[in-house]
Amino acid sequence: MLVVMQAGADAAQVENVVAAIRELGLTPHPLPGATRTAIGITGNTGAIEPERLQALSGVLELIRVTKPFKLASREMHPEDTVVRAAQTAIGPGTFTIIAGPCSVEGEDLILRTADFLVSRGVRMLRAGAFKPRSSPYSFQGLEFAGLDILAKAREKTGIGIVTELMDAAHADAVEQAADVLQIGTRNMQNFSLLKRVAVSKRPVLLKRGLAATLEEWLMAAEYVLAGGNYQVALCERGVRTFADHSRNTLDLSVIPPAKLLSHLPVLVDPSHGTGRRAFVPAMAMAALAAGADGLLIEIHPEPDKAWSDGAQTLDFDEFDKLLASLRRMAEVMGREIN
Amino acid sequence: MLVVMQAGADAAQVENVVAAIRELGLTPHPLPGATRTAIGITGNTGAIEPERLQALSGVLELIRVTKPFKLASREMHPEDTVVRAAQTAIGPGTFTIIAGPCSVEGEDLILRTADFLVSRGVRMLRAGAFKPRSSPYSFQGLEFAGLDILAKAREKTGIGIVTELMDAAHADAVEQAADVLQIGTRNMQNFSLLKRVAVSKRPVLLKRGLAATLEEWLMAAEYVLAGGNYQVALCERGVRTFADHSRNTLDLSVIPPAKLLSHLPVLVDPSHGTGRRAFVPAMAMAALAAGADGLLIEIHPEPDKAWSDGAQTLDFDEFDKLLASLRRMAEVMGREIN
Amino acid sequence: MLVVMQAGADAAQVENVVAAIRELGLTPHPLPGATRTAIGITGNTGAIEPERLQALSGVLELIRVTKPFKLASREMHPEDTVVRAAQTAIGPGTFTIIAGPCSVEGEDLILRTADFLVSRGVRMLRAGAFKPRSSPYSFQGLEFAGLDILAKAREKTGIGIVTELMDAAHADAVEQAADVLQIGTRNMQNFSLLKRVAVSKRPVLLKRGLAATLEEWLMAAEYVLAGGNYQVALCERGVRTFADHSRNTLDLSVIPPAKLLSHLPVLVDPSHGTGRRAFVPAMAMAALAAGADGLLIEIHPEPDKAWSDGAQTLDFDEFDKLLASLRRMAEVMGREIN
Amino acid sequence: MLVVMQAGADAAQVENVVAAIRELGLTPHPLPGATRTAIGITGNTGAIEPERLQALSGVLELIRVTKPFKLASREMHPEDTVVRAAQTAIGPGTFTIIAGPCSVEGEDLILRTADFLVSRGVRMLRAGAFKPRSSPYSFQGLEFAGLDILAKAREKTGIGIVTELMDAAHADAVEQAADVLQIGTRNMQNFSLLKRVAVSKRPVLLKRGLAATLEEWLMAAEYVLAGGNYQVALCERGVRTFADHSRNTLDLSVIPPAKLLSHLPVLVDPSHGTGRRAFVPAMAMAALAAGADGLLIEIHPEPDKAWSDGAQTLDFDEFDKLLASLRRMAEVMGREIN
Repeated sequence: MLVVMQAGADAAQVENVVAAIRELGLTPHPLPGATRTAIGITGNTGAIEPERLQALSGVLELIRVTKPFKLASREMHPEDTVVRAAQTAIGPGTFTIIAGPCSVEGEDLILRTADFLVSRGVRMLRAGAFKPRSSPYSFQGLEFAGLDILAKAREKTGIGIVTELMDAAHADAVEQAADVLQIGTRNMQNFSLLKRVAVSKRPVLLKRGLAATLEEWLMAAEYVLAGGNYQVALCERGVRTFADHSRNTLDLSVIPPAKLLSHLPVLVDPSHGTGRRAFVPAMAMAALAAGADGLLIEIHPEPDKAWSDGAQTLDFDEFDKLLASLRRMAEVMGREIN
Repeated sequence: MLVVMQAGADAAQVENVVAAIRELGLTPHPLPGATRTAIGITGNTGAIEPERLQALSGVLELIRVTKPFKLASREMHPEDTVVRAAQTAIGPGTFTIIAGPCSVEGEDLILRTADFLVSRGVRMLRAGAFKPRSSPYSFQGLEFAGLDILAKAREKTGIGIVTELMDAAHADAVEQAADVLQIGTRNMQNFSLLKRVAVSKRPVLLKRGLAATLEEWLMAAEYVLAGGNYQVALCERGVRTFADHSRNTLDLSVIPPAKLLSHLPVLVDPSHGTGRRAFVPAMAMAALAAGADGLLIEIHPEPDKAWSDGAQTLDFDEFDKLLASLRRMAEVMGREIN
Repeated sequence: MLVVMQAGADAAQVENVVAAIRELGLTPHPLPGATRTAIGITGNTGAIEPERLQALSGVLELIRVTKPFKLASREMHPEDTVVRAAQTAIGPGTFTIIAGPCSVEGEDLILRTADFLVSRGVRMLRAGAFKPRSSPYSFQGLEFAGLDILAKAREKTGIGIVTELMDAAHADAVEQAADVLQIGTRNMQNFSLLKRVAVSKRPVLLKRGLAATLEEWLMAAEYVLAGGNYQVALCERGVRTFADHSRNTLDLSVIPPAKLLSHLPVLVDPSHGTGRRAFVPAMAMAALAAGADGLLIEIHPEPDKAWSDGAQTLDFDEFDKLLASLRRMAEVMGREIN
Repeated sequence: MLVVMQAGADAAQVENVVAAIRELGLTPHPLPGATRTAIGITGNTGAIEPERLQALSGVLELIRVTKPFKLASREMHPEDTVVRAAQTAIGPGTFTIIAGPCSVEGEDLILRTADFLVSRGVRMLRAGAFKPRSSPYSFQGLEFAGLDILAKAREKTGIGIVTELMDAAHADAVEQAADVLQIGTRNMQNFSLLKRVAVSKRPVLLKRGLAATLEEWLMAAEYVLAGGNYQVALCERGVRTFADHSRNTLDLSVIPPAKLLSHLPVLVDPSHGTGRRAFVPAMAMAALAAGADGLLIEIHPEPDKAWSDGAQTLDFDEFDKLLASLRRMAEVMGREIN
């Protein structure tokens, strides 16, 4: 933490800030400069709120130095985390595909999709039983019946299941049906829900919030890690910007800094990220090239008849073609598709 | 809904889209233009997902015409909604002040603040018992003990209580202690929580999400209205943009369009909106001038010692000064501070 | 400037950075902390590029402390600047109205508008002779003929003229016709143009760029001040965000920090800021309440027939009504409309 | 163009809008719906400003259907444009590398870099003689002396030169020294400058503005095409968003829609896009995978001593390593590095 004083701040104002820092149990280090004084602060600034220093007389601004995440940080945990679910390892050396329809529309669809994926060597199926919808009048998912269908698909085909948990009250049921608990973008800072999955035995796939900075995203992961669940994968799915050429702005540029600052694997969802089928394959390829650890991707045997998000969903042929391209590129990069 | 065809789309492609629209139970209206054909769609497009039309051959883009909110829209409900809580009416003709510390730090603080507010004619106190914090290591609020303190302040002083509900599991307790249930910015699209407050007898104060469009915000309100709770007030509290001159970008410009499209009252939170004490009074005045229905504002007898958000909190003297300025301006505008 | 080292950085890495700082002619101040070392830098960091330190081994990040603007900063120039043009003083105690049509459409329009404004006590007319248009196929302004019309209006009515300079090649002609040179939002960082107006005898009205931070805006002003022209007024006109409820997002929240950091007056353009006539009056009132020094506002006798921007333009009656409201509010605030 | 009426609009209001559309020389097509009427407009809406319809009584909003760009659109020009400069073809089948230091610091640096690039089979060198800098106190480039150095490097090594044109007054000199004229991000909507390069014989590399939508970017290209210069390449270099994990947000997701809507080649600048050396290679690879036509990338023999932008600049070894990776990936994708 660094307190920057105004250019005209006098010695008494500096001394007052120094005293306030000491009062907080921290150590001040005044740095007189040519035009102004800055005061470095050392000590454990995490537990208290030095922000109050900002309002002291003569203070221009407060600059935080230490990143607030600890368990999620690579500094504390240099080696990459591998998230294990079903027979898959999400992490270095692999590129994990998690595919399926936006929502569980019925048993036929899910079994057909699971069979298709297994035949392609894909080991994880994604589909929503509970659906967060902007409108109360839109289809909200098959809910518990949807979970039953997912559980049956797992039993029959051995495929791993990724599905969203929207409400702590559903957590036990979702844990039974799913191998990975997805926290959706709208719930990235639903701290009650994060605390619930923090005590789950299931890995967590944490989607980035629409307006979340990398730091906020890692802090949301920190909630899960701090509760004792170390199996967390991040998932970039597009953020909200002024750009209107796609539904969201898929931020592939977050991958290198996320990998630098954290040891957690990073997946990419090009379906929600672009909102448009024609743009999905290029972004899926780019995610692999950018160093992502895998994809969350929407497929459906007949996307034009999907109950939700059909416009961003690949059909099986399109997915096959993309998968072949990904395999070729992964080989060049020394990565294995799983 | 309007389907815009590519310039080179041929008659068969147009016919195919027309057929798909009919299959959805809707009525197509082809509009051949100089360079391209557009196809208007009439019928109830709310229940189904015409987005799938986007992926049909020859389609350039899909343009939605009808706004998806109904109960929240002024078209359906031309007169302004008045939200009534404690002895206050939030709505036309008044400008409602809701003030208090960021968090319930203890009984003394709350009682002292309540007494102060009552002495100034302010009838609603805000303070958080449950606090959403970016870091799991930050103070999370006094929780249920905090609710007890708020209830006691209400009993002793008659002041109305506004406090945040973060978790449906706390809803009964929060309803007992509070006159207004606040849904925080991070939970604006926590649909489970919205469905819970939709069946509450308490009015709801719905903060705008950090990256919520006006339409998404009104759709979140629609969840509450659709569940049967018509007492909803909106609260602008700053959105996330590239601008770094304040903690968030307080979007006062949303007030006139919100008032045009909806009948719900709109409050403004200049404390979270700016994140800095020195900027709060100017934004509070501007909120009144822009047509807001009131303020949610942080005050504390000793902001520099506040446990959270002290940097954006006014002390009692600063609040008194602001209140005097607001009263003078409200009088000119024919509004009454309550 | 502060260099933050990685948590695991060793003594050799710290020493290497310290040496690099010295090589730049600056003074390093190592600050060993509990988890990492930070190194404060003092000396004149403006002329060189300490950013290169970021790439040194063991460096986590670089944090700049000193603001780069000098002549524009309030620290260097505590008293408010007053910009004087025509018979107007833009600055403390006044609230200056600059009104007129988007573009110079003809002599009749300009003379009629000038007469109207003079009759209302407004002393500055704005209208574009050269128009920056997104499309090469849109009306680009009457250009030099437009300047002649503006000059004639000034001669006949005594009104001051504000008009945009888009090209250094037009500067002499624009200086002759105008009292204030407007730099448009798209040219805020057209440094060649800024250098040209920096040697002008005319005051400059510098619009904020669509994605300009406050610092970048003040640095653009610094270009003008550094060239010797101290008569600069800033003008907020909406920035680009995700919000789609208005054409741009009018950022009134920039006013208090702009006033804190700089001594330059700040105007607001609610017409471009909102893009919609119905939203203009509320934002004009809010600008006054927020502490702005005046307005740039589009009016036209028949907005529906305006050649450009009619949708955001007030007619004379609407303007009269707004002016009356502004006068009432200005009186309460101790400001004089001029 | 589509005019959407308010739900409660009556027949007279609809008729009034219909009449206003006819008065503009356009054809109205009323579309009565269940809750409201929409009115389609056909005819040439480019030359006039139907925006004025928005302000008519009973109008809810105006929706534009036709994209305003024509020459830049793929609909008008289905085959990909190939931009030819030096011995390079930027377009389908190739992936063009344009590399070099941020600024021309001296003859040695440029000749050394040109020799290095030629030895690696790279045929285009980028370096700035005129530098747009946020601060008037920063190094502004060697200017005309820099152009001479670039011309000499071309003469000696045969390498093609890409350099920025900041001011129409320098255009003749820059055209002599350069094979491609770069329009920088801050000048994307400097329409005077665009009109100047529109009459140049040199190809134009048009960087995307910091807050430019795809449509605005293509409209800027349209200025150049409309003036008669069809050799335009686009360059994505990062946009301005809330994200703070890198200097700008490199928007690779714009590539597929840009390719869909336009026939112009799209390059990517991962150096400015990320602002940080460690992030450049991953984004360069992702650009290739996403379908870009090439890279603009900063290299320097000793980045830590570069006069500007050293923190985002690769050294020659890092560039060699990246080039090898790009070649391997390009081969798999059926593209040739040139």
